[in-house]
Amino acid sequence: MTTALALNCTLKPSPETSNTAALLGIVLDELSSLGVQTEQIRVCDYNIPFGVQSEMGDGDEWPQILDRIRAANILIIGTPIWLGHKASVTQMVLERMDALLSETNDKGQLPLYNKVAGVVVTGNEDGAHACAESILFNLTHLGATVPPNVDCYWLGKAGPGPSFLDADGEHHEYTRKAALYTANNLAWFARLLEREPIGTDLNELNERARQAAQVAG
Amino acid sequence: MTTALALNCTLKPSPETSNTAALLGIVLDELSSLGVQTEQIRVCDYNIPFGVQSEMGDGDEWPQILDRIRAANILIIGTPIWLGHKASVTQMVLERMDALLSETNDKGQLPLYNKVAGVVVTGNEDGAHACAESILFNLTHLGATVPPNVDCYWLGKAGPGPSFLDADGEHHEYTRKAALYTANNLAWFARLLEREPIGTDLNELNERARQAAQVAG
Amino acid sequence: MTTALALNCTLKPSPETSNTAALLGIVLDELSSLGVQTEQIRVCDYNIPFGVQSEMGDGDEWPQILDRIRAANILIIGTPIWLGHKASVTQMVLERMDALLSETNDKGQLPLYNKVAGVVVTGNEDGAHACAESILFNLTHLGATVPPNVDCYWLGKAGPGPSFLDADGEHHEYTRKAALYTANNLAWFARLLEREPIGTDLNELNERARQAAQVAG
Amino acid sequence: MTTALALNCTLKPSPETSNTAALLGIVLDELSSLGVQTEQIRVCDYNIPFGVQSEMGDGDEWPQILDRIRAANILIIGTPIWLGHKASVTQMVLERMDALLSETNDKGQLPLYNKVAGVVVTGNEDGAHACAESILFNLTHLGATVPPNVDCYWLGKAGPGPSFLDADGEHHEYTRKAALYTANNLAWFARLLEREPIGTDLNELNERARQAAQVAG
Repeated sequence: MTTALALNCTLKPSPETSNTAALLGIVLDELSSLGVQTEQIRVCDYNIPFGVQSEMGDGDEWPQILDRIRAANILIIGTPIWLGHKASVTQMVLERMDALLSETNDKGQLPLYNKVAGVVVTGNEDGAHACAESILFNLTHLGATVPPNVDCYWLGKAGPGPSFLDADGEHHEYTRKAALYTANNLAWFARLLEREPIGTDLNELNERARQAAQVAG
Repeated sequence: MTTALALNCTLKPSPETSNTAALLGIVLDELSSLGVQTEQIRVCDYNIPFGVQSEMGDGDEWPQILDRIRAANILIIGTPIWLGHKASVTQMVLERMDALLSETNDKGQLPLYNKVAGVVVTGNEDGAHACAESILFNLTHLGATVPPNVDCYWLGKAGPGPSFLDADGEHHEYTRKAALYTANNLAWFARLLEREPIGTDLNELNERARQAAQVAG
Repeated sequence: MTTALALNCTLKPSPETSNTAALLGIVLDELSSLGVQTEQIRVCDYNIPFGVQSEMGDGDEWPQILDRIRAANILIIGTPIWLGHKASVTQMVLERMDALLSETNDKGQLPLYNKVAGVVVTGNEDGAHACAESILFNLTHLGATVPPNVDCYWLGKAGPGPSFLDADGEHHEYTRKAALYTANNLAWFARLLEREPIGTDLNELNERARQAAQVAG
Repeated sequence: MTTALALNCTLKPSPETSNTAALLGIVLDELSSLGVQTEQIRVCDYNIPFGVQSEMGDGDEWPQILDRIRAANILIIGTPIWLGHKASVTQMVLERMDALLSETNDKGQLPLYNKVAGVVVTGNEDGAHACAESILFNLTHLGATVPPNVDCYWLGKAGPGPSFLDADGEHHEYTRKAALYTANNLAWFARLLEREPIGTDLNELNERARQAAQVAG
């Protein structure tokens, strides 16, 4: 069964209300209705040390989350905006995922190959592009595929103001449309890559690059 | 036949030497060897007014380039870095492409649906992620799919220094590897989407979003 | 007399309505009331080739603008947001200013030393931080000082929507406050640096850096 | 006495070697030689919960650091680059500082008014502008002044490679020069603002903005 994992990178531990959780919920509900099995994890509820390794010992709970990432076909990062940028928790998650760059399969492919990625962003105002573009790009570096129109965000007007839930963002048409696009394109591409896994043999390309570089000698 | 279009967004008109052209050439050579028909256009050789419409009259040569974009399966934006960011010509190209947001097919899909996008960046130092992440994200907004590892860049050390060609960047192993990854994953995904065009019916999703928004009443 | 130059980097030539011009106007009106002599230039009305030199011949009108920059105590860049980022015209202006990095006075200081810089941004939604942070940082690299709270922007909610003027952004309290902060802090700091020009001798620092680097040998 | 506080936002707790600490050290040594009293804090050695308040109880050690920030004339943020962007610890620090937006003096000025800010960045490659521009802009939003040329960074070539210390970055001329510029301009401006505190009365501007907004009615 196709599976989706949403990592909610809010700064607020459960059971505090998370606007990002609410918007992720809309995307996950649509994925469920498309027959995808979904799961949402609030990252800051776990004990996760800062770092760039997959296991850091001493009560590190990242490995549990990493297992869920490995098992999912669809990975959605949900982030609030703080000071115009993605939350510290989001960056911490990406840093821990950086360790995946040293794991490859027999074709030299990274662990996120054949997975698809999307992003959900909530903020009072400004910063959604900055969050979405850096998260999605990082995930392609780590091997994920980014379908068209898989960013879903809500923002209010310039300056301080109510957040997603208080502003009834759930009924903002643009955000609603983006949630549907995100879920449907993620599901469509995840199933495509389940049927047709990426064939590129990166080991061979690595070898050719090594040889081309030696010519420099 | 699968086709690739590279838009070189250097600031320097022909026949000046373009480092970005040289790195794009490595990616395009690999695409050719994979059976893809390639074309490289140096955008600043054309008369293109600033704006956000597809036709701006008065000697506007953008429509010629737009025709090539429409015809291609693979779109690669090549940009130099200036002051840490993508070149003005690159942003001008994206602004002209913004007009595509108002064109949809009978499924409500944008003109870049079923196309794949990659990026090539050259700079003396610093700025490749900033260029790549914003260009690729903009292209997914416009409908393109971004496969894994389709950014290829060369950078020297912090501060002023020699550019790609003078520094023999063609033999820098990391850049060489990225060029091969970029070409091979773009070709693989372009062919996948030729065989399996994206099925999502966005018109239906638009209608559902409209209804969900009205509930707000 | 203290002088302020605003460069409006809209894509729309005169006499088209520019939202950025309107918001710049609010900042400039306040500067006038503080006794600062102000000027607003719409950059795209001039013939400015792409490039990174101060004079590019062949009808290049940048030198006229550069003269106005050199004469001003306060430099304000006004930019619209397109695709979440600063306009191509804005980046073109910064690229042309890049040539200033090779001009220094007898203390090794760049031409923007003792000038102060601010920024004005208008967009339908999202991208003001991305515009402001990159523009202001570039200007500090070129020698300008950035006082606190000298960014003024207007943005609507997520997605397409009315622009600054149509949305009556002139009466949006946050934007109005930012306009007043921007003008007052720019004027205060410009006068401070007129009285107390920056004393740092960069030539001496350059020499010390050269020596420290040679130790590496 | 003029004081400088450097916050090292490395992910690595003491006593691990921190490249960012080493580059910060060069800047702080120069500040010492200019008669500035300096202090360097490694943030991840403290227990700091995620959040956006100044005191979060339960062993929160942020208040100790915040006291040091309040006492300093010069604030330098040192950050490593991870995945092309500022470290999670850096963003966490900025998020905690966000609470300062609700504290004002009798002129309505924020706590960072009359302080100056600079930035130090180390990475294997790429991302220094992205880190520096967002950190410095955030600090101007919080009230700090940014003098010219107060960013100091070291980066290697594109792709993985040795870090600052292993690559003998201490003898890289561009980085060395930037360290001297950063220290000297920070010291010069800090002393200027000690003698000439910012005069702008923001309370009055707030009131005028409120009135201008009401006209909208």
